[in-house]
Amino acid sequence: MIYFDNAATGGFKPDSVKSAVHAAIEACANPGRSGHKLSIACLERIYACRRALCDFFGGYGYDRTVFTKNCTEALNIALLGALKAGDKVVSTVAEHNSVLRPLEYLSKRGVEVRLAPLNSNNDIDIFALAKTVSYDCKAVIITLASNVTGAFPDIASLRALIPQETLLICDGAQACGHININMKRDKIDALAVAGHKGMYGIQGSGALLFSKRLNPSPVLYGGTGSESFNLNMPEFYPDRLESGTLNYPSIISLGEGVLYLQSRFNENKDKILHLTQKLINGLQNIKGVSVYSRLNPFGIVAFSLGNMQSESAAQRLSEDFSICLRGGLHCAPLMHQALGSDGLIRASVCAFNCEREVDALLVAVNKLASE
Amino acid sequence: MIYFDNAATGGFKPDSVKSAVHAAIEACANPGRSGHKLSIACLERIYACRRALCDFFGGYGYDRTVFTKNCTEALNIALLGALKAGDKVVSTVAEHNSVLRPLEYLSKRGVEVRLAPLNSNNDIDIFALAKTVSYDCKAVIITLASNVTGAFPDIASLRALIPQETLLICDGAQACGHININMKRDKIDALAVAGHKGMYGIQGSGALLFSKRLNPSPVLYGGTGSESFNLNMPEFYPDRLESGTLNYPSIISLGEGVLYLQSRFNENKDKILHLTQKLINGLQNIKGVSVYSRLNPFGIVAFSLGNMQSESAAQRLSEDFSICLRGGLHCAPLMHQALGSDGLIRASVCAFNCEREVDALLVAVNKLASE
Repeated sequence: MIYFDNAATGGFKPDSVKSAVHAAIEACANPGRSGHKLSIACLERIYACRRALCDFFGGYGYDRTVFTKNCTEALNIALLGALKAGDKVVSTVAEHNSVLRPLEYLSKRGVEVRLAPLNSNNDIDIFALAKTVSYDCKAVIITLASNVTGAFPDIASLRALIPQETLLICDGAQACGHININMKRDKIDALAVAGHKGMYGIQGSGALLFSKRLNPSPVLYGGTGSESFNLNMPEFYPDRLESGTLNYPSIISLGEGVLYLQSRFNENKDKILHLTQKLINGLQNIKGVSVYSRLNPFGIVAFSLGNMQSESAAQRLSEDFSICLRGGLHCAPLMHQALGSDGLIRASVCAFNCEREVDALLVAVNKLASE
Repeated sequence: MIYFDNAATGGFKPDSVKSAVHAAIEACANPGRSGHKLSIACLERIYACRRALCDFFGGYGYDRTVFTKNCTEALNIALLGALKAGDKVVSTVAEHNSVLRPLEYLSKRGVEVRLAPLNSNNDIDIFALAKTVSYDCKAVIITLASNVTGAFPDIASLRALIPQETLLICDGAQACGHININMKRDKIDALAVAGHKGMYGIQGSGALLFSKRLNPSPVLYGGTGSESFNLNMPEFYPDRLESGTLNYPSIISLGEGVLYLQSRFNENKDKILHLTQKLINGLQNIKGVSVYSRLNPFGIVAFSLGNMQSESAAQRLSEDFSICLRGGLHCAPLMHQALGSDGLIRASVCAFNCEREVDALLVAVNKLASE
């Protein structure tokens, strides 16, 4: 089986990550809840992961690095926890439903939401976006990479185009682990992280990092092991946003993923770029195939195959060739609308994939195209 | 090291659970997001876990069994997702902050919250509770076992005492896996499950099961892999309440925990009862020790040691005797207030503990008591 669905979830975890998860389950206590040695040891490891993650992304403080169950929860905290009726925000048609659905919910409660279009290159039109941003715009919410095509905005340019006062909230689901992100350098106010894709963590891991200009209210309420006599959530972070027992094994996996990335960031990036370019070139040479992606460091290649429905093509590739990739809308409906597509086939490679697998996909697509 | 902090998190996982988690990380796709073989196989396993959990608790349908990151998220969905301004609810002073803090939040938004007291046995006074329940009371929210003392209400009697129309929402954090719970038999409308305690799953696992009388709104919004063109959350369950990538390894661990429990439920229960009784008897024979727990199937034994602060005692037991247990408030402030305590030492045993370990704890407490 060839796994090219790494943008849905990373199909391969480094041995170091797997071992760390195993160890975290083997010697397991509830971090931050009890004062005994094992609990404190677990808490110290959680903090080490928090520090590693914050430093990796140039975050604004270890307390402003909170662990979530996935990138969606992180985005919900940043959006539902920080926006209120009367706020004006601008987002884009390239967003995933993890942004669009919270914004739809908020728009019914008095938040004014505008969406920037794509430009003629099918990239997010950051100039059109900037024009939509009024001086009193509270926040721009933008993905750092389209999960459909891998198109990615120039965040430094975007930041320069919008008012300093406007918060910049970024969906890092696809981008984290693949490109160099530094929140302080890029003046990003919130970064939502998926742990289980480019970060090499396991499912159940995610994080929200945020600046001192953003002070999200909780979306979940519960025990924190701190200020237990206070029936309100503590005012301080990270406790304010981390209710209930933390997912220790997943957090450990994310911390270990950061370590792994630190040692192989450039090597992995080069490999992904090489495989992506090879795949794009190969697909462009197949008659009937339209490629919707340009070279990108996320390993995402979206394409269509004649008039074949994308889900049918993906199913054929799975059943007849044992190649796993994803058809359909990829939870990004407005992106497809903007592309004029009703679904695309998306291959997403990672650094654990190899040229031979790309060749096999090209052979398979060729066969389907010539039927 | 002796681990007696199983009410904070189960310190021992069955080999079958550990192996299943390992396998779930090894062969990993995003369930419900793609149509390829591996994704479908993962989705089928998620559904097998859903079925197992629903059947284990006599739930109201596989669609009404949703996975959460912990018991706290499950309680938040049941409370924030189902209660609105003007609703009257009754809860108890024995609740954990995972119930008290959401209720405090709701009480500021127009939900009328009353709390039932303890009776002279330090049990939840279900008769006083029932008297507080008016005919128009929307819901009773009650723990199935105090996480401080292990006291547990007679749910069948409680159900008979309150109006049929009143929803019964139960916090199963401590009780699940230890006692026989059947939602349909006991007319429970919502059961919040912690996966990582009595259920033998890993941290990051939890669930909410709910009846057809309860239709919670989401607390988190995002992609579901379904109805992707709909910018609102789907109306149907479980999708409506499961945004973003599911925590596949944790869910698998919970499903495997259910299997493990099914094969050893009575054996484990007998062992826990035996160890709990032995511990209570032993502690009662130590001068200066006051025991706050009666025999209970959750393995919880709370006690105080003369005038020694509970955290200090727990720290001494950890440092000098390598025994892990928890001092303090256990995130249940009103329970301590009702007990007249400002913190208790809590030992919590599980079926993986043994008599020798109980003896060691008794020796250690004896030494501290005679200082």
